[in-house]
Amino acid sequence: MRRPAASVPAALAAVRAGEVDAALVPLENSVEGSVPATMDGLADGDPLVITREVFLPVSFVLATRPGTRPEDVRDVVSHPHALAQTARTVADRLPGVPALPASSTAAAARAVADGEHDAAVCAPIAAERYGLVPLAEDVADHPGAVTRFVLVSRPGELPAPTGDDKTSLVAVVADRTGALLDVLREFAVRGISLTRIESRPTRDRLWVYSFSLDCEGHVAEARVGEALAALHRVCEDVRFLGSYPRADGRTSRPVPDEAADAAFADAQEWLARLRAGQV
Amino acid sequence: MRRPAASVPAALAAVRAGEVDAALVPLENSVEGSVPATMDGLADGDPLVITREVFLPVSFVLATRPGTRPEDVRDVVSHPHALAQTARTVADRLPGVPALPASSTAAAARAVADGEHDAAVCAPIAAERYGLVPLAEDVADHPGAVTRFVLVSRPGELPAPTGDDKTSLVAVVADRTGALLDVLREFAVRGISLTRIESRPTRDRLWVYSFSLDCEGHVAEARVGEALAALHRVCEDVRFLGSYPRADGRTSRPVPDEAADAAFADAQEWLARLRAGQV
Amino acid sequence: MRRPAASVPAALAAVRAGEVDAALVPLENSVEGSVPATMDGLADGDPLVITREVFLPVSFVLATRPGTRPEDVRDVVSHPHALAQTARTVADRLPGVPALPASSTAAAARAVADGEHDAAVCAPIAAERYGLVPLAEDVADHPGAVTRFVLVSRPGELPAPTGDDKTSLVAVVADRTGALLDVLREFAVRGISLTRIESRPTRDRLWVYSFSLDCEGHVAEARVGEALAALHRVCEDVRFLGSYPRADGRTSRPVPDEAADAAFADAQEWLARLRAGQV
Amino acid sequence: MRRPAASVPAALAAVRAGEVDAALVPLENSVEGSVPATMDGLADGDPLVITREVFLPVSFVLATRPGTRPEDVRDVVSHPHALAQTARTVADRLPGVPALPASSTAAAARAVADGEHDAAVCAPIAAERYGLVPLAEDVADHPGAVTRFVLVSRPGELPAPTGDDKTSLVAVVADRTGALLDVLREFAVRGISLTRIESRPTRDRLWVYSFSLDCEGHVAEARVGEALAALHRVCEDVRFLGSYPRADGRTSRPVPDEAADAAFADAQEWLARLRAGQV
Repeated sequence: MRRPAASVPAALAAVRAGEVDAALVPLENSVEGSVPATMDGLADGDPLVITREVFLPVSFVLATRPGTRPEDVRDVVSHPHALAQTARTVADRLPGVPALPASSTAAAARAVADGEHDAAVCAPIAAERYGLVPLAEDVADHPGAVTRFVLVSRPGELPAPTGDDKTSLVAVVADRTGALLDVLREFAVRGISLTRIESRPTRDRLWVYSFSLDCEGHVAEARVGEALAALHRVCEDVRFLGSYPRADGRTSRPVPDEAADAAFADAQEWLARLRAGQV
Repeated sequence: MRRPAASVPAALAAVRAGEVDAALVPLENSVEGSVPATMDGLADGDPLVITREVFLPVSFVLATRPGTRPEDVRDVVSHPHALAQTARTVADRLPGVPALPASSTAAAARAVADGEHDAAVCAPIAAERYGLVPLAEDVADHPGAVTRFVLVSRPGELPAPTGDDKTSLVAVVADRTGALLDVLREFAVRGISLTRIESRPTRDRLWVYSFSLDCEGHVAEARVGEALAALHRVCEDVRFLGSYPRADGRTSRPVPDEAADAAFADAQEWLARLRAGQV
Repeated sequence: MRRPAASVPAALAAVRAGEVDAALVPLENSVEGSVPATMDGLADGDPLVITREVFLPVSFVLATRPGTRPEDVRDVVSHPHALAQTARTVADRLPGVPALPASSTAAAARAVADGEHDAAVCAPIAAERYGLVPLAEDVADHPGAVTRFVLVSRPGELPAPTGDDKTSLVAVVADRTGALLDVLREFAVRGISLTRIESRPTRDRLWVYSFSLDCEGHVAEARVGEALAALHRVCEDVRFLGSYPRADGRTSRPVPDEAADAAFADAQEWLARLRAGQV
Repeated sequence: MRRPAASVPAALAAVRAGEVDAALVPLENSVEGSVPATMDGLADGDPLVITREVFLPVSFVLATRPGTRPEDVRDVVSHPHALAQTARTVADRLPGVPALPASSTAAAARAVADGEHDAAVCAPIAAERYGLVPLAEDVADHPGAVTRFVLVSRPGELPAPTGDDKTSLVAVVADRTGALLDVLREFAVRGISLTRIESRPTRDRLWVYSFSLDCEGHVAEARVGEALAALHRVCEDVRFLGSYPRADGRTSRPVPDEAADAAFADAQEWLARLRAGQV
């Protein structure tokens, strides 16, 4: 069963409280960048893990009550993110009309249906639900934008490796020169590509940053496991956010032979022999 | 003469248009992180440079019209960033009262003065200007938060080096493994510390990131100049955002002898002799 | 029981054949550099391991038969390495006298005793054994030179870690850009200092080099073990040459907390929990 | 006019004294490794530069006086390096016959001609000169061995860049962790491949090493010049040993676009504009 949540924090709280099994929350948008509420909501509080990623095209319509003409529109309302992604197109269509913030795009559609405002930037499905009609479709300034959502659950059995996975984590690094370089090096020496890196302030300490990272590979792989263990040693804190199938349609870099599980296993056996005096 | 601007984009546009000499805009907040509107506003459009940084404590009051009692308050209004930074404290003071978004904290104060809403989270000076009184002072969840503002102008003569400066830039890196590592390495080999790194999506290309960086030192220094020139070679694009006196109250790492201007000058003379056959 | 060997290869062969338990062979000299016969003798053939290192001062005398006056000496004989280390001093003492090579310094002393040559550069003990007397003592051009000897055995139980150990190995790296950098990086990311690095041609392949390395630490330590295992993965070949107490009188760099065995053990437990879904 | 020299040090001394214009000296051998006398002779004393490299196949014959039968040979004489490179083959041909050192392979041939010894390992031309005949040809244990010679002169105008050059240098690095890694990094960040690295003890300071390096490229190139200037800053000492056409028959790695002279020139112009306030 699916149910809507009032906000990202509310959705994550429902998962943590055991009220739902999982939440699908937006993590980043190809135009607007990361979603701070999700970033911070995963980094703080009881542990949650990502078990899946989903990419959805961003589609906005400019919706009004039936019968409204463009020249009748005195204001446009939407969530600030949606207004930001449609600002130029909306200004072209409705020159000089002020844009007002709403708490969500769905709330904006409802407010237009209720007659509080005249036009909303919202998803086509929200327009339909509240009986609105599109004054203009596809009003995103950058057509082709997509939003990456992640399915988040309480910790449990990990998704099995598929051979084409991603691993997410948050690392808090010491406040010193080269700390981030050291973190990146732990991936590089083990032949692991990063697919995303975002910095976030740590709320409790001025100007100390944490880094939210996605890398190729699954924690069950030796190379990823050893890299995570290394971060656990060298960072102030590391939070594992899950390993899950890659779904962005891009191809992972082939695992170099020397970073494959077989190479790690072979090296471990060799080392065990050395330590036993059987060179 | 100082004048307020409706928004960060408006302030930057006024500078670009030559209507004002400079704009003081928020770049990052110690709790909420970077301010996307400023980041993107500096990275895109005609070049602008930072000539100064200023750190201001974040102070919020919960303000109402005179005579309003806590139990009378049916809604709280403010800019979403301000609501985010005061959410817990406001919820403690006004349990169950909904929080509504406004386009700015000043607009929220005015809306309360106009009777549209009952309480606003805003700066003390805004409360005073609109005749409001504080129901509670210092309502930030994380006391001690500061916002870093930067003074932004059209390009011109650079501020003179003071010996304790910062340099800001935006680098767009190729979409390949190790690209960010390469950028960081150009600073590390020249003994330069980074003080901030933020990633931002590049709006035109899916999942290609740019990095907004601050480093210690002034572009007039040899080490910083050589590092910037190296980035110009290895990055897809580099935008210089200024060199200006450091004002965050932290001490820059001493410049290692081998990275001082004298060492660079000496090395250049030596190299010129080699090339002339005078080993 | 101790017995002399005709040469380094002969000494190593005797160990390999089981004729003796161990051989004490010179590995490097503070003036002349590495001893190729020992380097190559350890790198090729059946595996041998170093169990101890010993540093001995280099002391040379210029020895003659009793009664020989400086003006009587028509030639000086010694091993080429010894002649190289005493060339200037001997030339000062015996201007114009030719220096001739011998297969060892002991053979040179014997040849003088036999009347085949007039003077030998040899160790004081060799002069004494063959009834020679010193024409000049301490004839090394660089006083204070020492030779590093290593005690070499067939593989067996390793010397126990002492907390101040060295580990020796030979790594054959692929013939590609950055291969050596990659090797050094495996040590650097794990907080391990190198104390020696020598390159040697690999005899079978033109211009492919192997690197003979000493690092701080014992293979029983987690950081050293993981670094060796990494080299086993990324190098074409790695030969372990032993872990043994450091005896050069220099202080090892303190092991950083994040590279201590406890940090590795803690990280492994953490990783095991992650993989079991117990974040 | 060409003339032989008694030894490498003698050849280098003749160049330094102005007695000859240049000396062709062996730098390294594909089997035996570097030639210490040449390495140290170039690193110490008045500056000399390499202007050319030449690779010559190593060819040894086992030579005797005419009429000598294998069973007549009671000893074999040669320079220790030549004995080392032919030990197995000579032992097969002349089982049990002792090998004796000579000061050079030419001296060995002469000694056999003079009747002092019975067989010499020497170059075919030396056998011919002294009237010896080959008992066996091509007696090198590793057929195909080559020796790299370098033509060395007093400093003067450099050979012009050819687009496929090598640059040689000696760097003395500080006695600290990571010093060599730092040196290699200066090449790596500028897209320069190393073709040789050898460590040598610095004669005056115990266990402090210098590194003798060859890299691709010419000092007249911007990337090589900047790398050398960087080493001049970060190393205790750097000695430039010349830039000259590559002659080893191997292909240099293509210069990456971002490391080409044009990219450096473009970056310098850009930096100059930044510094002038013309962003």
